Amino acid sequence: MNNRKISSAVIRRLPRYYRYLSELIDNGTERVSSNELSKLMNVTASQVRQDLNNFGGFGQQGYGYNVSFLRDEIAKILGIDSPNQMIIIGGGNLGCAIAGYPKFESRNFVVKGIFDVDPHIVGKKVRDITVMPLSELDVFIAHNDISIAALTVPKEAAKDMAKKLYSLGIRAFWNFAHVDLELPKDAFSENVHLSDSLMQLTYMLNNKK
Amino acid sequence: MNNRKISSAVIRRLPRYYRYLSELIDNGTERVSSNELSKLMNVTASQVRQDLNNFGGFGQQGYGYNVSFLRDEIAKILGIDSPNQMIIIGGGNLGCAIAGYPKFESRNFVVKGIFDVDPHIVGKKVRDITVMPLSELDVFIAHNDISIAALTVPKEAAKDMAKKLYSLGIRAFWNFAHVDLELPKDAFSENVHLSDSLMQLTYMLNNKK
Repeated sequence: MNNRKISSAVIRRLPRYYRYLSELIDNGTERVSSNELSKLMNVTASQVRQDLNNFGGFGQQGYGYNVSFLRDEIAKILGIDSPNQMIIIGGGNLGCAIAGYPKFESRNFVVKGIFDVDPHIVGKKVRDITVMPLSELDVFIAHNDISIAALTVPKEAAKDMAKKLYSLGIRAFWNFAHVDLELPKDAFSENVHLSDSLMQLTYMLNNKK
Repeated sequence: MNNRKISSAVIRRLPRYYRYLSELIDNGTERVSSNELSKLMNVTASQVRQDLNNFGGFGQQGYGYNVSFLRDEIAKILGIDSPNQMIIIGGGNLGCAIAGYPKFESRNFVVKGIFDVDPHIVGKKVRDITVMPLSELDVFIAHNDISIAALTVPKEAAKDMAKKLYSLGIRAFWNFAHVDLELPKDAFSENVHLSDSLMQLTYMLNNKK
């Protein structure tokens, strides 16, 4: 199912399908037509059918899609059908916000540890996790099956931190530092550049005037 | 200059141009070729020229681009050449992380107020801003020139809050709530859906295996 090359635009839409399908399940809905899905997703019904056809197409003519089957298939494609263990580097407000994000658990994301260099932050409790000093990072990663590192460190520290984490075996970086990481080919990052995002808003504001 | 229809892909790249040009300025660089810019941006030189041509093209054959002129022009296009005043609804970790984000000031974003319903959060100080109760929102907006509202409230509260803010004159929403806002046509939102972003990472992890 994953052999076909799927466009990144489709992949970007999958979490939204997942979200809306989860809401339908919460509401007790068992099946949904491409038309209904398209209204939720704010794309055309033909786009919905085309998107889902990428994965072999789970719909049946005249029946629509089985909501929980479709959601489970999308979860598999997104790799959230089993737990993904994560550490957070940086125990400031942003790191704590991420660690405390309630939705993550339902998406099978598990925050296993938070690390910081600042002695004022080390020892702080975020939910049931105590912020650890960076000096314990190596041992922690060696003893836990961590697949993702979230970087909420200052820009200046991010590249070196990514390099260190890579050397410890981490390959997936969720990067909040305002810098583009330079990673070896077998590693990848997803950037959340907050001020870049905010500038999209001011652009819209500016061009509306 | 802003009359041409510019693709959203180009607009999405502009903050990165802005960021790299700012770094060049910080390093004392006065001019840059499309070739050099393309390496920083990790796109082709022809893409750089094409992107910047959208805005009338600021380069000169054999000279390249004047770094600070180009950065200033991009700042104008992005609408960050003058201050944009913002309020944050939700004074939890995420709201505080945003309020404390040091880069915002250099981008001309000014956080003017933070609001929350929780009496335990109201009165808290974030930098030099005291979190205000939501009941003061109407009066505050009436007396301050606020153009952007950041929503770091729970999903359940976000839509109603956006509606209320719209009725108070806010048209630009920076939405961190895990829901797609439904806004009138003259308003717009930029979403930061953290778990959607994280799922892009697990997709990459999953499809690498």
